Amino acid sequence: MNIAVLASGSGSNFEAIAKAVKTNYIKACLKVLITDNEKAFVRVRAKRFGIKDIFVNPKHFSSRVSFDKHIAKILKNEKINLVVLAGYMRVLSPYFVRQFQHQIMNIHPALLPAFKGTGAIERAYRYGCKITGVTVHFVDEKVDHGPIIVQGHVVRGEGMRLEELEKRVHKLEHILYPLAIKLYVERKLKIKGRNVKII
Amino acid sequence: MNIAVLASGSGSNFEAIAKAVKTNYIKACLKVLITDNEKAFVRVRAKRFGIKDIFVNPKHFSSRVSFDKHIAKILKNEKINLVVLAGYMRVLSPYFVRQFQHQIMNIHPALLPAFKGTGAIERAYRYGCKITGVTVHFVDEKVDHGPIIVQGHVVRGEGMRLEELEKRVHKLEHILYPLAIKLYVERKLKIKGRNVKII
Repeated sequence: MNIAVLASGSGSNFEAIAKAVKTNYIKACLKVLITDNEKAFVRVRAKRFGIKDIFVNPKHFSSRVSFDKHIAKILKNEKINLVVLAGYMRVLSPYFVRQFQHQIMNIHPALLPAFKGTGAIERAYRYGCKITGVTVHFVDEKVDHGPIIVQGHVVRGEGMRLEELEKRVHKLEHILYPLAIKLYVERKLKIKGRNVKII
Repeated sequence: MNIAVLASGSGSNFEAIAKAVKTNYIKACLKVLITDNEKAFVRVRAKRFGIKDIFVNPKHFSSRVSFDKHIAKILKNEKINLVVLAGYMRVLSPYFVRQFQHQIMNIHPALLPAFKGTGAIERAYRYGCKITGVTVHFVDEKVDHGPIIVQGHVVRGEGMRLEELEKRVHKLEHILYPLAIKLYVERKLKIKGRNVKII
């Protein structure tokens, strides 16, 4: 099975996934990293792991759909079975989502449906939540909305600072994302409506 | 310290609180149960515990505020320090909330801010959440919104039916509501904006 990661930033989740593939925890081929940001640090990480790294410049495309069509073409050429979003800062077009139905995963640093969108950890902190967490889900046409694969919780301890909460949430992400991908690769995820059963 | 419970239904949370007072886990006086529903089973529970039970008929009042003013008057007469909502099916008027600022608690069967409003457990189940829970919070002028006192999580196991999830959420409610009240009675809750610190 062939995996592609789409990312725009530092790529700490990319790193966790690449390690999980390298150590054979995930038995699949991480074929390509695609970025929309030339200076993203995740590109450095891809080089270290010897993973092909493609930068697609959004400025060369007149619309979101034409950009997404180009990415979809690359993914088809690489025979990708699973598209993993890891800090990819673009909303996918409905066209793209339809091309890869139930083949795109995203991770969100909160217990969805709470705190959709950006800044989720800080927003949960400011809200005064005592429990927050991480969600890995399939991507559908709405943002942070598709069927949930796995969730994990993080307790906000008394007097815990935002930085510490962020650290704990990210640590959990680096466990849950490889797990969700592993389950997918081993064909252990059964989707029925919004419910994802692990068989 | 004097506590009043406002309830409209079966009153399983009332039962848990009354037991916690009886066994001295909560060191306070549960002075009165007020209901807006003449046939609520919670009234039978109050009688069993020998707790004063007052039914206030909403039909005798022309507005929500006039109804709430009557309740507030009863609570002032009883020298109530803490108002506990336990399945009370009425939205409190801003007038009432201002009269008892940071002295009204509510419990919600979800991890707020997710699944505000009625039917929270079933909605979390249908959404496909892998983790849901319980929130005890102070009441402010918005529904299911005030500062969070305690939260606990419930894992939805593989193949778990809605009835089983409901049972587990309710069980957790019966632990967390007495705990939150105990902390309040012992003056261990310090509110700062939306954050409630346990000291």
